[in-house]
Amino acid sequence: MREVAIVGTGITKFGELWDKSFRSIGIEAGIKAIEDAGMSGSEVDGIFIGNMSSRFINQQHIDALIADYSGMATRNVPAVRTEAGGASGGVAFRQGVMAIASGMHDVVLVGGAEKMTDLDDAGTALIMDSTADAEWEGSMGLTLTSLYAMIARRMIFEGKVTREEIASIAVNAHVNGARNSNAQFKNVIALETVLRSGPVADPLNVFDCAPYSDGAAAVVLVPLEQAKKMGVEYVKVSAVTQASDTLALFQREDITTFKATTVAAKEAYKIAGIEAKDINVAEVHDDYTVAGLMALQDLGLFKSGEAGKAVLEGQVGIDSKMALNPSGGLKARGYPVGASGVAQIVEITEQLRNKADNRQVANAKYGLAQSVGGTGSAVTISILEAI
Amino acid sequence: MREVAIVGTGITKFGELWDKSFRSIGIEAGIKAIEDAGMSGSEVDGIFIGNMSSRFINQQHIDALIADYSGMATRNVPAVRTEAGGASGGVAFRQGVMAIASGMHDVVLVGGAEKMTDLDDAGTALIMDSTADAEWEGSMGLTLTSLYAMIARRMIFEGKVTREEIASIAVNAHVNGARNSNAQFKNVIALETVLRSGPVADPLNVFDCAPYSDGAAAVVLVPLEQAKKMGVEYVKVSAVTQASDTLALFQREDITTFKATTVAAKEAYKIAGIEAKDINVAEVHDDYTVAGLMALQDLGLFKSGEAGKAVLEGQVGIDSKMALNPSGGLKARGYPVGASGVAQIVEITEQLRNKADNRQVANAKYGLAQSVGGTGSAVTISILEAI
Repeated sequence: MREVAIVGTGITKFGELWDKSFRSIGIEAGIKAIEDAGMSGSEVDGIFIGNMSSRFINQQHIDALIADYSGMATRNVPAVRTEAGGASGGVAFRQGVMAIASGMHDVVLVGGAEKMTDLDDAGTALIMDSTADAEWEGSMGLTLTSLYAMIARRMIFEGKVTREEIASIAVNAHVNGARNSNAQFKNVIALETVLRSGPVADPLNVFDCAPYSDGAAAVVLVPLEQAKKMGVEYVKVSAVTQASDTLALFQREDITTFKATTVAAKEAYKIAGIEAKDINVAEVHDDYTVAGLMALQDLGLFKSGEAGKAVLEGQVGIDSKMALNPSGGLKARGYPVGASGVAQIVEITEQLRNKADNRQVANAKYGLAQSVGGTGSAVTISILEAI
Repeated sequence: MREVAIVGTGITKFGELWDKSFRSIGIEAGIKAIEDAGMSGSEVDGIFIGNMSSRFINQQHIDALIADYSGMATRNVPAVRTEAGGASGGVAFRQGVMAIASGMHDVVLVGGAEKMTDLDDAGTALIMDSTADAEWEGSMGLTLTSLYAMIARRMIFEGKVTREEIASIAVNAHVNGARNSNAQFKNVIALETVLRSGPVADPLNVFDCAPYSDGAAAVVLVPLEQAKKMGVEYVKVSAVTQASDTLALFQREDITTFKATTVAAKEAYKIAGIEAKDINVAEVHDDYTVAGLMALQDLGLFKSGEAGKAVLEGQVGIDSKMALNPSGGLKARGYPVGASGVAQIVEITEQLRNKADNRQVANAKYGLAQSVGGTGSAVTISILEAI
């Protein structure tokens, strides 16, 4: 099995990009990644795209769309679209790594893209394209937000977190987003702002929820041995794992933890030959604040019941031993669903290459990205290593 | 790169399965494949699912759905959904092969499933989830059927086929479908039936178009070296390739050939170390009759301009040197979109294992499957070899 390296990254601004089309943002991210790798598009021999819903743009066959508008269809480069709800981008990255590892591809472009704000009502589209269980949850009126609200309520009930600790995830996100020129939200917010914002599904308020966003991200993968010869800054993909869980939340024994995260993380640490304490920077899937807290515990970065206090006390900031979501996370950078898993990889790569501008985490050796679909029904964990 | 073998197949009946749900047919095919391999579900360590549209069942995150309802989510087995229009199943198969080849998985279940007939209007769903170019084709009122009608008209204009030759693809399909107990249509039809059926998009009539269908198919993959020790009948995956082309038809230099097919086929023959003339049985993507004829020429199975005559004269029947779509093809077996590419692999495997009942092709050594998305915007070619 060939080892894999990331040699280039590209990302668009995240936000309400009304002057750009889905295809234009997809291509923008891809071209930036290829240029960053010092390569030409003619060297790419495989494309993997994470994209969640065709309902936002009335277009399926995103694989062909991206191959076409990137100009790569003229060379008939194969393209693959993966969909796994919020983990669509994480799964695309894992498939891209697999493609290099298998020897079936030598230069792979992994992209993630979503355009959510051209629609009158992205919320209805998300409900119709349910990433919860349509038969057992959606049909009862349950949305992802209400499911995460149940998780939050249960975590508070069991004493694992407090309402303030949950809200502190958003505060950390906005502090970091304010340093990220590509972020959707660049305003620092107070804890009170989260706690007093309008309720969405009690106990979660507006500021506990990641926004609807447009955006795209991309990375270029090559075999590690090839990266060493290219004369570019690269990072090693030390592990990329994936795990599943039941689609419906009510089927779980415990809704205060995502088993798919714990299983995939355990396997990833083993493959990378490290422990959770070795992680210096993590991008976790905070589509809801409570999910960000849960991730810190499920990943073993904090003991169960201790993550909330740490975040509330500011122990996961950019200058910390373990920096959380320096990009601003889904909450502040924005959450174009299919782009998100790849955007995390972009951020971790920039951090490990010391190219993260004024949000640079010092001396980061190992970075982790966690991408989540539904209520933890699919989770990918990627561990990247600075060389 | 590890070589890959197919050790089990499973398929449901194709048709209007109003008494079964999407999840139940998906699981039925998977269980049959695992049982056929003489294995237990607990041995599977990866799932790849081809599925086209969430609009038919208002459900995304099909990866998690299948992992869940197969019981494999209890072991957190990773699942991946691919979407590439009509090639969704072919792409899932290629990703499954890649997973084994990479060493990241040892026992992979590849499935394809679609449930199209629970909806009042599958046609509208297909238009909204366009696999043509939504901006440049769909917005102008072009559907896949009208695009294939343009292809047919151009092929007739250039003298590459006649209307009767195009229609003969449906006749061959129905002859074979009548021998397939799982087929949606089991009635032998006359050429006149096709020619006199109601027009859909001139020159294509109702009998030139594959039906809306429900159905699922699955195969189990293991490393070739492992298959040899299992004591089951298996076939070798000699090659699996994929190529892309422009999403919109008007961008092509020539619409009487799918370049993605010719490029992927050429590469597949090279990898398998054979020539087109070595193929004994082929399952090609005849979503429209004209596409079936075009495939025969693009795959090099017949010279350009000669395929139509051969089909019309009955030279591709089950008893022929090169048997075409012994399953009945998309036209007669049925066309549940995402299932189709995997169903082709099931049929070729059965043919090469001499388990195809009364539609068995004699002494087949090499079989080929061609899965197509959109108007040839993505094509996968798989070559399987009898052992």
